[in-house]
Amino acid sequence: MSKPHRRGSAATRRAILDSARTAFVGAGYDGAGVREIAAGAGVTAMMVNRYFGSKETLFAEVVAEIMAGPRVLTDELMARDDAGLRLAQAVVDMTGRSATPLDGFLIMARSASSPRAAEIARVEIERHHQKTVAQALGGPDGATRAALILSLVAGVQVMRQGLGLTALTEADPEALTRLLGRQFQDLIRSQP
Amino acid sequence: MSKPHRRGSAATRRAILDSARTAFVGAGYDGAGVREIAAGAGVTAMMVNRYFGSKETLFAEVVAEIMAGPRVLTDELMARDDAGLRLAQAVVDMTGRSATPLDGFLIMARSASSPRAAEIARVEIERHHQKTVAQALGGPDGATRAALILSLVAGVQVMRQGLGLTALTEADPEALTRLLGRQFQDLIRSQP
Repeated sequence: MSKPHRRGSAATRRAILDSARTAFVGAGYDGAGVREIAAGAGVTAMMVNRYFGSKETLFAEVVAEIMAGPRVLTDELMARDDAGLRLAQAVVDMTGRSATPLDGFLIMARSASSPRAAEIARVEIERHHQKTVAQALGGPDGATRAALILSLVAGVQVMRQGLGLTALTEADPEALTRLLGRQFQDLIRSQP
Repeated sequence: MSKPHRRGSAATRRAILDSARTAFVGAGYDGAGVREIAAGAGVTAMMVNRYFGSKETLFAEVVAEIMAGPRVLTDELMARDDAGLRLAQAVVDMTGRSATPLDGFLIMARSASSPRAAEIARVEIERHHQKTVAQALGGPDGATRAALILSLVAGVQVMRQGLGLTALTEADPEALTRLLGRQFQDLIRSQP
């Protein structure tokens, strides 16, 4: 009789993914080790490799899962007449002083030094955010405008939440939302 | 007679700063060690600490030097009627496929995982870029608009140069410049 398994393969896979998310969000791509991820899931490093092949694949799965989850840039939001302002409100809320930094932001910030993590992130951003936003935008240069919307979201996250630039952390949230909303709106409803 | 010195203290200081810049740009704040910086300058780690006190101080000096150097956001540029477009051209040029990533961008990207490095960078960005741009802007919400200009520059660097988002690396440079120029211009010459 073979050794009894405490859980099935789906549960093991889930436990590894959860442990990996915690590790990558906390320490970044280079900082998190397969052995530590395995320990967090209560399995061996060999088991992690059997389920996911490599740390790269595991990282890609974690990033894909984060990006497929709840997001700011939804189709519904993009279809609204006041999409720019709504998006600005969401970005200002999520980067506020009392807001918990999002896993997606932390994992990117803490993995920024790794070229391999950057490449994986690029693929997942294109597959998720870039595609969703570009499809929602009408008019010319849709892909470029979508990418600039993502750049502005990322830039505000970096400067307001990552670095804590005083002019952004102490800005009147309404003024900040208005200014940022105008930027987004121009990119969303661009006239050539 | 005391041991002859091969160079004076200004030259030693300069050699340490140059070695530190190379090390921090290459490996980030956490990745670069004082011993390695000392070796690159041909001095002992104790000498580095005697000149700069700590790795933190040294990092701050390197970041300050980079930011005080040649920059995209000059007073002359900001005073021009077509400041937005000029700034967009500069950002598109400096993030292009064949452009060498700037030391300032690399050092930030590779130090992004360190809260201490982020705090030092914030202070230096506020002392240099943020101050220059906010002073050049007239009208209401100058500090917030300046910070959003910096955010957009940072966001395009991250997404185009750092991650290599295809929609930005393969965008028609003229269309990208036009769209980005309109964003910058609106922030520079904002009407309430």
